[in-house]
Amino acid sequence: MSQSSPGSPLPPASPDLPVLRVAVLGAGTVGTEVLRLIAQQGEDLAHRIGGRLEVIGVSVRDLTRDRGEHVPADLLTTDPAALVREADLVIEVMGGIEPARTLLLDAMAHGASVVTANKALLAQDGPTLYEAADTHGVDLYFEAAVAGAIPLVRPVRESLAGDRIQRVLGIVNGTTNYILDAMTRTGASFDEALADAQELGYAEADPTADVQGHDAAAKASILASLAFHSRVRLGDVHCEGITEVSAQDIAAAGRMGRTIKLLSIVERVRDETGERISARVYPALIPDSHPLSSVSEAYNAVFIEADAAGSLMFYGQGAGGAPTASAILGDLVSAARQRVRGGVGPRESRYAELEQIPLDDLRNAFYISLTVQDRPGVLAEIAGTLSGYGISISTIHQELIDQSEDGGEKSLAHIGISTHRALESAMTASLDVFSSTATVLSIDSVLRIEGE
Amino acid sequence: MSQSSPGSPLPPASPDLPVLRVAVLGAGTVGTEVLRLIAQQGEDLAHRIGGRLEVIGVSVRDLTRDRGEHVPADLLTTDPAALVREADLVIEVMGGIEPARTLLLDAMAHGASVVTANKALLAQDGPTLYEAADTHGVDLYFEAAVAGAIPLVRPVRESLAGDRIQRVLGIVNGTTNYILDAMTRTGASFDEALADAQELGYAEADPTADVQGHDAAAKASILASLAFHSRVRLGDVHCEGITEVSAQDIAAAGRMGRTIKLLSIVERVRDETGERISARVYPALIPDSHPLSSVSEAYNAVFIEADAAGSLMFYGQGAGGAPTASAILGDLVSAARQRVRGGVGPRESRYAELEQIPLDDLRNAFYISLTVQDRPGVLAEIAGTLSGYGISISTIHQELIDQSEDGGEKSLAHIGISTHRALESAMTASLDVFSSTATVLSIDSVLRIEGE
Repeated sequence: MSQSSPGSPLPPASPDLPVLRVAVLGAGTVGTEVLRLIAQQGEDLAHRIGGRLEVIGVSVRDLTRDRGEHVPADLLTTDPAALVREADLVIEVMGGIEPARTLLLDAMAHGASVVTANKALLAQDGPTLYEAADTHGVDLYFEAAVAGAIPLVRPVRESLAGDRIQRVLGIVNGTTNYILDAMTRTGASFDEALADAQELGYAEADPTADVQGHDAAAKASILASLAFHSRVRLGDVHCEGITEVSAQDIAAAGRMGRTIKLLSIVERVRDETGERISARVYPALIPDSHPLSSVSEAYNAVFIEADAAGSLMFYGQGAGGAPTASAILGDLVSAARQRVRGGVGPRESRYAELEQIPLDDLRNAFYISLTVQDRPGVLAEIAGTLSGYGISISTIHQELIDQSEDGGEKSLAHIGISTHRALESAMTASLDVFSSTATVLSIDSVLRIEGE
Repeated sequence: MSQSSPGSPLPPASPDLPVLRVAVLGAGTVGTEVLRLIAQQGEDLAHRIGGRLEVIGVSVRDLTRDRGEHVPADLLTTDPAALVREADLVIEVMGGIEPARTLLLDAMAHGASVVTANKALLAQDGPTLYEAADTHGVDLYFEAAVAGAIPLVRPVRESLAGDRIQRVLGIVNGTTNYILDAMTRTGASFDEALADAQELGYAEADPTADVQGHDAAAKASILASLAFHSRVRLGDVHCEGITEVSAQDIAAAGRMGRTIKLLSIVERVRDETGERISARVYPALIPDSHPLSSVSEAYNAVFIEADAAGSLMFYGQGAGGAPTASAILGDLVSAARQRVRGGVGPRESRYAELEQIPLDDLRNAFYISLTVQDRPGVLAEIAGTLSGYGISISTIHQELIDQSEDGGEKSLAHIGISTHRALESAMTASLDVFSSTATVLSIDSVLRIEGE
């Protein structure tokens, strides 16, 4: 990792390069890695930027904790507000909405360019940050906010800036992928897999943001905004987590040659009312032959479909200190280069102002599982209800689950049904009927089927 | 593909946006697609750029050919030299070294930024182009030169600008991948698979640049230069093509659970003399479990290994009119934005000036196949030679191929040997011994094993 080597000593960068003052907000796993990379690659970065980075302070909540050799105690401060006003470049890895939001706005008002990994803040209030960057002529970069080290923000907003993105579909949350992957491999329940993930450090003590899909939804809102040149906020993203995914669902998917993954999907949808966009997060069954089905452990992978480029896939580590720090450093170099050479990076692009399509208007394929009374006519009744709402059945799997002694009314069966694509509203209506039908004892699962 | 839709009419871009004059050099498959995208996405591009693109001319060799609706006859010219002097932005998709080189230098001297897909020119004389861009304060973009629509140049030179890339390994030539994939699926010979590929449009009438590895080597030189901040020219890349890969090699690889792919590899190599870099192209055996082994038809896929980011993979269409045009348009938008807003894009970065490691000094694993006399002691002799040069055998497969009538001296055997990693120079020395040994009748194949 040293920048010099016996065979090829790195020529020193010119000593009179301009100096850029860097403030780091937060010294957790990512912040520490950012500081390590800046320290270890100082000479390389000076060459690449044409300027020298000088870390002028690191804001923390606890001054007394030892944070290792790359976080010198004399740089620590509990006054981030004062720190950001002195900086040319501010790296925000503290997370949360406040005080991060106020600090970044203040930093930009004082002329600093900003690099942030804060997906929640961007999803909730990105436009305010963009406007501040615009007003003050500074840069706002956030590659690390989506899929860690995987270059995704820059490809979407720059590489594909001359193309028309139709769809982005991906696994962008490592924790939930780790849990679903474990459930698939071992047959464990959600609770068991979550406990294992927590023990191994793949899930946090409070896993809500991950397992409820909020983290993936924040990333979907960022990707949708960039891909469709429209403002898509967190509240616009339909979001379902994985807490209801059962070992039975995983097994049923397996029987159908499918794997359950938590997907973030943003896409253009054209129908008779015109073109609208959809941003949604939910666990879905995808074919085992789909490349996303083999994305294991905490890895992330994202497909982008664009008119001219066709299908592109990006794969890598979506989280972790070093990968996230890599993305931040890439942005830092870009922002620093602009400082030195003039110019500004990409701005918010929201000219298209595409409307959101309500979930009800989407057409999706479904897998539903029901517990029903095992008596003649039940299947016909269920099929009739679905058919009445225009939903066509693709496959049915029926299994007796409780054979009572007299073989009579108390026998129960489990029915798993996969459907062809149908309106979400039609499925909702069918489920309403099922939940008020005596023969259907419970609706055990409702999952979409994607990637066909 | 229309930019307007009944539900969400695109708000028109301001009519008084600055106009950017675009010259297109070449109107083949890619040039035509570029012009189609500019025409169809005009309003979108104006919004994204903050300026309007006006195509002022398209240089061709034949004015009389009809090139479809998106290449208006009145824009055609056979005087590219005059055209580039009038342009703000020049798109070069004519290919070849001259006159492309002179035209691009002239364009930059007259203040135009340049977007080129010309990998051969960049690999042969990239530094001259970079210097011209630097001298005249204009941009030089070339995403389309490597792996078509797959964002690779921008991720390497920008997203990973704060990381330390150790290795880039990928399939970056669609034609050879199509041929090798067909050989693997059908058992066809190279000549048969090439003829099929030519018939289907996957290989050109003169396939030399592809099948000899020159195209992949040009891309390797570009990637190595960017990844290692050093100048790596085409002549620095060790290059072997796929013309010698036989159906027998493919079958032998299959028996070993491996697939043969043409790989472009650029990497840092540390040994006792320090850190050097290697750039090379050759057909290699990779494990069937390696993600690159399942890259089929004309697709491209590239792995990047960086210290902090870890392993990243990029996958998509590496060639074709529309995908290449997508990459060009992305660059065009970047270059146009800089024009409108000020600033310049990334420059050449060659500060590290890492030395090339000669092929002889590399350590590789090999698969070799020999035709030998089938008599006692032959295997021991071969094994002894390899061992004498420090090469350790991993697996041996022996097969009788010509049992003569008296079972005597004329019996022949085929021996396939895979080795552990050893110095290239040691393998060369061993092969020299084999070629002067009476018991070895022929050296049929020498292939590397990668991706273990």
